[in-house]
Amino acid sequence: MFDLIIIGGGPAGYLAAERAGHAGLKTCLYEMRSLGGVCLNEGCIPSKALLHSAKMYEYALHGSSYGVTAQDVHLDHAAVVKRRGKVVKTLVSGVGAKMKGAGVTVIKEQAKIAGRVEGGFRVVSASGEQTAKRLLIASGSVPVMPPIPGLREHYASGFVLTNREVLELDQVPAKLTIIGGGVIGLEMGAYYSVAGSQVTVIEMLDHIAGPTDGEIRTMLLKEYQKKGVTFLLGHKVTGVADGQVLCEDPSGKPVSVAADKVLCSIGRRAQYQDLGLETIGVETYRGGIVTDSQGRTNVENVYAAGDVNGHHMLAHTAYRESEVAINTMLGKKDRMRYAANPSVIYTKPEVAGVGYTEEGAKEEGIEYEVKKLSMRYAGRFVAENEGGDGLCKVLVDKVHRNIIGVHMIGGYASEIIWGAAEMIESQLRVKDAKEIIFPHPTVSEIIREVIWEFPD
Amino acid sequence: MFDLIIIGGGPAGYLAAERAGHAGLKTCLYEMRSLGGVCLNEGCIPSKALLHSAKMYEYALHGSSYGVTAQDVHLDHAAVVKRRGKVVKTLVSGVGAKMKGAGVTVIKEQAKIAGRVEGGFRVVSASGEQTAKRLLIASGSVPVMPPIPGLREHYASGFVLTNREVLELDQVPAKLTIIGGGVIGLEMGAYYSVAGSQVTVIEMLDHIAGPTDGEIRTMLLKEYQKKGVTFLLGHKVTGVADGQVLCEDPSGKPVSVAADKVLCSIGRRAQYQDLGLETIGVETYRGGIVTDSQGRTNVENVYAAGDVNGHHMLAHTAYRESEVAINTMLGKKDRMRYAANPSVIYTKPEVAGVGYTEEGAKEEGIEYEVKKLSMRYAGRFVAENEGGDGLCKVLVDKVHRNIIGVHMIGGYASEIIWGAAEMIESQLRVKDAKEIIFPHPTVSEIIREVIWEFPD
Repeated sequence: MFDLIIIGGGPAGYLAAERAGHAGLKTCLYEMRSLGGVCLNEGCIPSKALLHSAKMYEYALHGSSYGVTAQDVHLDHAAVVKRRGKVVKTLVSGVGAKMKGAGVTVIKEQAKIAGRVEGGFRVVSASGEQTAKRLLIASGSVPVMPPIPGLREHYASGFVLTNREVLELDQVPAKLTIIGGGVIGLEMGAYYSVAGSQVTVIEMLDHIAGPTDGEIRTMLLKEYQKKGVTFLLGHKVTGVADGQVLCEDPSGKPVSVAADKVLCSIGRRAQYQDLGLETIGVETYRGGIVTDSQGRTNVENVYAAGDVNGHHMLAHTAYRESEVAINTMLGKKDRMRYAANPSVIYTKPEVAGVGYTEEGAKEEGIEYEVKKLSMRYAGRFVAENEGGDGLCKVLVDKVHRNIIGVHMIGGYASEIIWGAAEMIESQLRVKDAKEIIFPHPTVSEIIREVIWEFPD
Repeated sequence: MFDLIIIGGGPAGYLAAERAGHAGLKTCLYEMRSLGGVCLNEGCIPSKALLHSAKMYEYALHGSSYGVTAQDVHLDHAAVVKRRGKVVKTLVSGVGAKMKGAGVTVIKEQAKIAGRVEGGFRVVSASGEQTAKRLLIASGSVPVMPPIPGLREHYASGFVLTNREVLELDQVPAKLTIIGGGVIGLEMGAYYSVAGSQVTVIEMLDHIAGPTDGEIRTMLLKEYQKKGVTFLLGHKVTGVADGQVLCEDPSGKPVSVAADKVLCSIGRRAQYQDLGLETIGVETYRGGIVTDSQGRTNVENVYAAGDVNGHHMLAHTAYRESEVAINTMLGKKDRMRYAANPSVIYTKPEVAGVGYTEEGAKEEGIEYEVKKLSMRYAGRFVAENEGGDGLCKVLVDKVHRNIIGVHMIGGYASEIIWGAAEMIESQLRVKDAKEIIFPHPTVSEIIREVIWEFPD
């Protein structure tokens, strides 16, 4: 009998397995596809490989402002996609090595909970049955495929794609139409627009980038409009037909958008059906498996972490949730907090934020003070971004004077934001934040500049 | 009578002026050259403009591993230098605008302290005399020009350069010989080697990059050796003659290095002569002006900040020192701490560090624990660095279990390191550091990975 069986080898599952293994728990991990889950195989990582190539291509194309000239600059999409495969393979084997290093038994089959056994639980797969004292369900999520007429049929035919297929296209579609202007839609739109697609993003809300700070998402929108991407905001998709997406504009007028390929990226939903949860009575809700802030389900010794709990659906949230769950199993006091959970959009410019946005703070009735500065206040930004602009906003709790939100758009934002997560997590006050020494010249200094705009 | 006269408009001086002005002090700033000082005009900022162009050039040259091809890739050095001038001009005028915004009187003349006056001090310059209740001396530093035979003469003739002239060369020298393998030497060597120079770095010590972590500086050395830079370590320069630098190898054997231009970058020294310090009795030492941890000199109401105190000679150190001095003037409790003072080398790969290195900790007899990981443990690093490698090392105090050092080599290190400075400044313990959520996938996550290698 294992101490722990983990179902799902994505970020939540493999990290939990690693931590559990190193903590001495006899651990078994089931993964029916490839270790690393959606994130590593068909999400965060391969998209970053594509976007990095796009960035290099843009650098080579537009280098003349920086004194760098080149002729016949060409982006070889097939080579980019091939390289993505290599990167993923390297990292998947890295996860495999970590599992080995942590002494984790990996079973590459689909797992199903089959009920209880004395002192534990039964899990079955093609090769047989395993038992464990504890379960961690980390089965992740799948793309939402809403009941739009024609959507599923055209997904089956290959006209409609999800995050998986869009990363594997062997050719750049002349017209790429994207349903959903969230992170995935924007990142893939960013890549394919650079690669040569005429990209149209259809978004039901009146803005892109979901809960991102309002000013920043508007800057991002304008940036991509300048680059030639078309955004249909407030448009509701009503159907998918051969070579086109049908929608209604905000006034209800029908609009047809021509497409060679369609990316459906309107969101993800927890994947918890077919796991046999009913055999042991695990409680679920519409969004996923019900968990408390320790990752516990309603059933003793059964935990859930990552997308399957329906909370944040971010890989790094999954990491932390899985650690909290493992710590709880080990009897270490820990608790999941979402206040300092950063998010990033890897467009060019990059967008990154953590903590409250103005919109979010207002909604919750939090009294905040906000300050902001153009990125052009950072010397390095000016040195590296000919004609470019960006923004950094900081929110402070008016009563306690601690930093509750940091939001940025501009190069390096993705790599800078973790320190802001640390500020929020440690409830750092403005007065103390002012004493942190940022290296000069960096773009990160813009945070310091904005913080100094506040009174102590 | 002013509340405050500041001598020197570099990072220490202009930031102090800004803070003082906003705090309501009637402030006068003297700058004899250009606002922004060495950092902005002939140091940190212009070098970053050059290095960014070099990075773009390398991207365009080596894009094929990422699916990006280009022909006739060319770096137009004259255009790069011209652009640097534009970037500097933009930022200098930004500093000017800040001075205006803070109500600071700027006098663009050389200032000299001329003695005391009832309730304050007299400062004279070409246009007359000003008086102030307080003085802040922020006169910065100048390049060290050691008494090496032929060095000064060849500086006068234009064969030998300092950080100033090397940024303004209208042509790429075929052979660039650099005396001193510290930050400036390495950054300029990095640029010119990419731009086409055959670069030789002569360093008296047995290693480059001064107090940088030993392993990391060795990785940097190897990287640049691969790129074709020659390093003569343990070599002592004995003379400069027409077209050559003369030195002795570690065994004392004479070596001659051919050069079209020579960069002398062996360090900087505080600039405090000719300021009239003697008229009011300000105490100095070999390294500069003596200050306490509030920036106070031995003379009441006379402060000093930045390079002139001879401590760290970094722009961001100067920023903080000047803030401490201004806070002290304003009666706010503050104190300069150097423990969380980051440093960066903007080579490719970048090097960044903060806090104790292993070497430093050993020297001070601090009991530490160290963990390290290859940057290839970070998915984004793998996605963006074909065949590249890097390192992240973290040092923890063995007794108190707080983080005392973080050192990195690899892309984005410069923008990541500030959060590590925050960790050290706040004496964060390993246990708490483990709970910080880093966005995935980023290179910054490598810090989290290394921290998790430690027991709590």
